[in-house]
Amino acid sequence: MSQSDLLTQLMESLRCLPGVGQKSAQRMAYHLLERNREGGMRLATALQESLQRIGHCVQCRDFTEQTRCSICESASRDLSQLCVVETPADRLVIELATGYRGLYFILQGRLSPLDGIGPRELGLDKLAERLAQGDVREMIIATNPTVEGEATAHYLAQLAHQFQVKPSRLAHGVPIGGELEYVDRGTLAHAFGSRTDMS
Amino acid sequence: MSQSDLLTQLMESLRCLPGVGQKSAQRMAYHLLERNREGGMRLATALQESLQRIGHCVQCRDFTEQTRCSICESASRDLSQLCVVETPADRLVIELATGYRGLYFILQGRLSPLDGIGPRELGLDKLAERLAQGDVREMIIATNPTVEGEATAHYLAQLAHQFQVKPSRLAHGVPIGGELEYVDRGTLAHAFGSRTDMS
Repeated sequence: MSQSDLLTQLMESLRCLPGVGQKSAQRMAYHLLERNREGGMRLATALQESLQRIGHCVQCRDFTEQTRCSICESASRDLSQLCVVETPADRLVIELATGYRGLYFILQGRLSPLDGIGPRELGLDKLAERLAQGDVREMIIATNPTVEGEATAHYLAQLAHQFQVKPSRLAHGVPIGGELEYVDRGTLAHAFGSRTDMS
Repeated sequence: MSQSDLLTQLMESLRCLPGVGQKSAQRMAYHLLERNREGGMRLATALQESLQRIGHCVQCRDFTEQTRCSICESASRDLSQLCVVETPADRLVIELATGYRGLYFILQGRLSPLDGIGPRELGLDKLAERLAQGDVREMIIATNPTVEGEATAHYLAQLAHQFQVKPSRLAHGVPIGGELEYVDRGTLAHAFGSRTDMS
């Protein structure tokens, strides 16, 4: 090898990014050194500031550098609806795709007893407190349609019942714009069984 | 949107990396915040140190944080051979793939008059000085087999002649392990024309 130690170290460090292997890390390091040292320095500062200062919103557990995130702080959101998602990325995509104006609760994970992730780790005690306050009427459960996500959804629905809150779940079915031929069997069977009346 | 300002800033900054778009930047930011804050902080430090301290070797123009890079400093390299490449990445791949023990000169680009890149920008005055010292017997020209790379190679060969240095060029031909059916026409025509004697 015999290349600059600092350069080797930079390439190694870049591999902490998801999806970045040896080859990409090399390309990134050379790109920054050759063409964008300024952008690289900005990235270093942004990393330091974000990683040191971003914590979780005390109310919804989303990422924020404030005590409460801007959605929880907003006066224009509907307090009677609460959408529960697994990750901040899910929250973001719902916010961008739908016209939802209620509030969120971010689990930062899903129930997974084998990995030691139980109700406590997902902040469900905090969620229960919130439901107990009585503002929330409907809890929209938007966990992923995976085995663990479904188990989490089931648990959340029971929690909602305890507090006389109406639980609802995202509809399953054939994706819009997709072709039946390429839809997986499980989804197709579900969509067929839950067909809606057109009359 | 209404997401944390620092988070938005981090996602924006990550896009300075080559091949990282909005979606990847989002995934990287969430990954670091959720699972690897420590790695992210190490990356920030590595970026700052590298971008501030890595410069060019005064002899071969490779990246290094020293005055001369470790290859130029090494006492065990063959001073009579000089391999000229376009980028540090090319130098690295030659070093890893071949048993070459001579020295290098890194152009950090290729001749491209339309982009304002002439002999001066490639440090060819420095290369000429080096050839004038008389140690170098053979100059291995390993620029890319592109139009601009070939033009640069031609220029370099003339320079070598001026100083009574023997210029050589990487062999062109059919890649080892490839199938003729999938080799491009230009390469195949060249390989056919430069066929070697097997007798």
